[in-house]
This record gives sequence, structure tokens and C-alpha cells, in this order.
Amino acid sequence: MLYIGIDLGGTDIKSAIVDENCNILAKFQQPTLVNRDYKEIVADMAACALKSLELANLSIDDIASVGVGIPGIADNKTGRVIFCTNLFWEDIPLAQELQKYINKPIYIDNDASVAGYAEYLAGVSKGTDSSVFITLGTGIGGGIIINGKPWSGFHGVGSEIGHAPLNITNGVPCTCGNLGCVERYCSATAIIRMAKEALSKDNSSMMLHMADNDLNKINAKIVIDAAKIGDKLALEVFENYTYYLAKAIIMIINIIDPEVIVLGGGVSKAGDYLLDAVNKKIPQFLLFKKCKYPQLLIAKLGADAGVIGAALLGM
Amino acid sequence: MLYIGIDLGGTDIKSAIVDENCNILAKFQQPTLVNRDYKEIVADMAACALKSLELANLSIDDIASVGVGIPGIADNKTGRVIFCTNLFWEDIPLAQELQKYINKPIYIDNDASVAGYAEYLAGVSKGTDSSVFITLGTGIGGGIIINGKPWSGFHGVGSEIGHAPLNITNGVPCTCGNLGCVERYCSATAIIRMAKEALSKDNSSMMLHMADNDLNKINAKIVIDAAKIGDKLALEVFENYTYYLAKAIIMIINIIDPEVIVLGGGVSKAGDYLLDAVNKKIPQFLLFKKCKYPQLLIAKLGADAGVIGAALLGM
Repeated sequence: MLYIGIDLGGTDIKSAIVDENCNILAKFQQPTLVNRDYKEIVADMAACALKSLELANLSIDDIASVGVGIPGIADNKTGRVIFCTNLFWEDIPLAQELQKYINKPIYIDNDASVAGYAEYLAGVSKGTDSSVFITLGTGIGGGIIINGKPWSGFHGVGSEIGHAPLNITNGVPCTCGNLGCVERYCSATAIIRMAKEALSKDNSSMMLHMADNDLNKINAKIVIDAAKIGDKLALEVFENYTYYLAKAIIMIINIIDPEVIVLGGGVSKAGDYLLDAVNKKIPQFLLFKKCKYPQLLIAKLGADAGVIGAALLGM
Repeated sequence: MLYIGIDLGGTDIKSAIVDENCNILAKFQQPTLVNRDYKEIVADMAACALKSLELANLSIDDIASVGVGIPGIADNKTGRVIFCTNLFWEDIPLAQELQKYINKPIYIDNDASVAGYAEYLAGVSKGTDSSVFITLGTGIGGGIIINGKPWSGFHGVGSEIGHAPLNITNGVPCTCGNLGCVERYCSATAIIRMAKEALSKDNSSMMLHMADNDLNKINAKIVIDAAKIGDKLALEVFENYTYYLAKAIIMIINIIDPEVIVLGGGVSKAGDYLLDAVNKKIPQFLLFKKCKYPQLLIAKLGADAGVIGAALLGM
């Protein structure tokens, strides 16, 4: 059987036709154009999906179900999107509206959850008993896979690892209104903030040169590239960042202890350089030093993870 | 069918015969007497279990399986205890040794996990989709129930909520060697520490009177009783404590989001007084203020939770 996957983002709607072996037979994408009535966006999601179907030379009869990953909180039981900041959605009957165009069973879940599910089905965590997927991007997303299924919580508000508190006193203010969330220490945004703070006290770092002497051009890649070639300030920032990331991973180990923890998102492109730095710091924080603990891996499906994981929610 | 449950503690071995409706037909307990060879302790565990069986007027043929809750890290797949601080056990073949005396399938898990499982099977979280059990005692134990089964992690080191980091900078030193663990802010020990710190600066509190003017007699009950009758210093300590507990609960909500969160252990005896104080603080820290979130409940099985949950691991 075949499945339609839709990855609804703040910038683009992506769709794909996916087979049960996680192969993409065809895919299509178009702009989301937020600031429209949700019904218009859902009509475009359906059109985008049907375009993929057409590109694959298939008919709707070949499709078993449709899955949608959304950048927010979904209630898969009711098919409603509870909350979706980027799209300004609140309590939207997504499944019901989408079924007007595609009359198939519809499954919805958080985008990081479905990306983690895709890595479990077809990526780096394939075949594992349990995994936690962490996207290190502008923000931090999380996907928890237990017993072969994504776990986004009973109310759909779980796996929001980026907003677990990591610092209850003197925490960095978070966009969510709280202090000290994981996201403020472990996202690409956090590296950039730490680099800018460091550069404001010491402007001799080559990071500044790599950013054309423009602090606004500092990004995570510049910091990591500068650290790799031995820039002292960049190394300091990278050491602090990987210390915080190790602490967030210890939180995941001490609470969930999955078989593997998968790092995705922009910062994960640093690959082994990132893994090595974090792996060096984890053992000292383990509760039981002699016990086995989750292996850290870098995600491998990249941008396709969203549509693959969404498609196979119905498998 | 009937099941034997054994709750192995640092002080006592408790056993019970439990039916499939979670009723205890008979129970027995005897001292653990640590500092002995593990084989002697396991022989006593078997004797304790067989004594329960005798008290219930039953034979071993009536028993389907034996379950054991241990105060440490268990690998249920191999039947080995990986680590157990209080008993000085490291990599002990518990199931294999116990089977020499009782030749039935043997299941082992962490004691807080089985207590949480008991609350799910027969207690306050009965019938829920998912729950997290937190014991607020000398330390902090955790039990996670997802899809009707205890989840103690792939390597057996999960659900150790007490050692998730809650403060990465200037954290209170923990017995585990790390800084800022949840246990240092949310256990009965934490209340006592905070009360002693407060009393060292202001000795006019009635807490001191209630403790016979002996700081060493301060306990969580004294602090909470004094807070209830309006003692200013005790109220301050209780407010700080419930602030920290609310933050730890937010961590659980943002990561796991179970249907309910169950509080057990000594501090939970404060009942509604505790729930009210924590429930007042949670909404301000929620990531999505309008979303539903886990209900907080007080455990109801008390000291029997350990044997009931252990017994029914094999159900």
C-alpha cells in the first residue's frame, strides 16, 4: 500500500507519496503563505498532495491514508490542531477539513515527532527499541519513539524537550515566557547568542572576520568552523554549548533512557565533531557510571524526514 | 492465576500473594540485613515469599510468576540487578539465583517503577492511558507507565527523575556527584535543608519549637504543619519547595505529558495542601497555556504499592 505524507511548515507545504519501505515515489512542495484562513491553507495542502500523486502516476485508490506533520501541538485522537504558533492556528479541525478533499483516514502529529519516527523507520535509528530525536535548529524540537510508535504525550504537549527547564535560577529568558528552557542553551540560536556575548568582550576572534565583521552574520556554522581550526573564543563557546547539550541529554537519559538519541537540525551538520565533544562530557554526569547508556547518533534523512514520518503514521 | 510480589528494600524484604484483581491474599515481611552475600539475601527473599504463600494456604502450583521491585537499576531482559546502592549490589544474577528456590518466571524492575505500576493497576491512576509516579521521600523515585506497561528505559537507567538536572549553574551538590538534580529541590531532604537554612537566619519560627529546639529534629511534616498554621518562615520554605516541584512537574509535562502525574512518598501525605500549592504554580509555566495538561493526584496504595506492582509485572 502507499501513503501520502504532508509536512506543513511556516514557509512551505511539502508532500510525498511513500511506500511501506519508506521510499519516496514522488514529492512536491509549494509555499504555505501563512496569514490566510486555515481553509485556504488546507485546500493547498490537499492540492500539493494530489500533485505528488499525479507526479507518481497514481490514483487516490492506491493510497491507504494521509499523515500530516505540523509545527505545533496536534491531537491525533480528534484530528484537531490544538496550537500552532507559526501559522497562528488555534483549535483547527485539520483532519476533518482535509478529508473534504481526500477522503482517507488522516493522522496528524508534531513535525519533530514525525521526523523522529522517520529516522526510526528508515533512518539512523532504524530497528531500535526506542529513540529520542532532538532537532538543534532555531529552536529545539523533540520526537520520542517508544514501542515502535511516536509518543507526543496524552494531551499532545509532550516531547517538547526544548522547553524543559534546565535552569531554575538566573535562567536565560525564553520566547515561551519562562526562564532557563533547554532551547536557550542548546539551539543554534543559543550558540549565536553565546558567540555574540563572547565577541562583545573580545573582538580578536576570527569568527568576526568570517562574518565580514558583522555581528549579525554570526551563525552556528561560523562558530563551529572557527572552533575546528582552533579559534580560542569559538572553542570556548563550543565547549560551553556542548556542556549544556550534554546536560540536556543527561536529562533525557535519566528520564527516558532510550536505546539511541538522534541529533538532527542545522547544528547536527557538525557531525562527528559535535558527537565527539558531547560524548566526552556525558560520562562524568551519568548517574550509574558503569551502566550502559544511549548511543548518540546524527540524523540521516535530512529534509525528507518530515514527509516520510508523516506518511507512515498510518502504517 | 496468582502472583508473588517481592519488594526488596534496604531495611525490609516484603512479599505478598496477589490476585489478578490486585488484591493481596497474604503478606509477610522480614529484615533485609544488608552487608551479607547476595545469595543469603536472595535465599531470604525466597523464604519470605514462600511464607506468604503458606499464610495464604496456597501451593507453588497456584503461582504464575514472581515479580521483584529493587531499589536500583534492573535489567528485566537478563534478570540481573545492574546496580543497587543501598544493598552494595553490582551486576547480580537475581532472577537466576531466585529461580533456584522458586522455579517460576521472574520479572524485576525498579521499586518506584513497580509502585507506579501498582497505582496504575489498582490505585489512583487506574485505567489511565499513561502516568508518571513521583515519590517525594528521602530521595526522589520515578515510575513511568506508557501503554499499560512500566517504562524504565532501554538500559534500565530511565525514570530516574530525581537525577534529571534542574539547575545547571550554581546547582546544589547531589549525593550522585552532580549539581542541581531534581532530588536536591523536591525531596523531603530538600525541604529539611531549606528549613534549616531559613532557621539559621531567623530563629523566631514555631518550627523550632515543634522540633524541641533541636534543628536535627526538623522534618518535612514539621515544616508543612507549621506552614498550615501560618508560620511565616515555614510558609516561605513551603512556597519555595512547591515552586521547585512545579518546575520539575513542568519538565515531566513538556517531555512525557502523561494523562496523570501521581505524587507518592512521605511529602505526599500533605495531600490537598500540597496539590493546591503546586497546582497554583503550574499554569504560569505551561508552554501552551490553553492546552490541557496532566492532572496531579496523590498516590493511594501506600506501602503496599511495591508488592502489588512487583507481583503483577508478570500479568
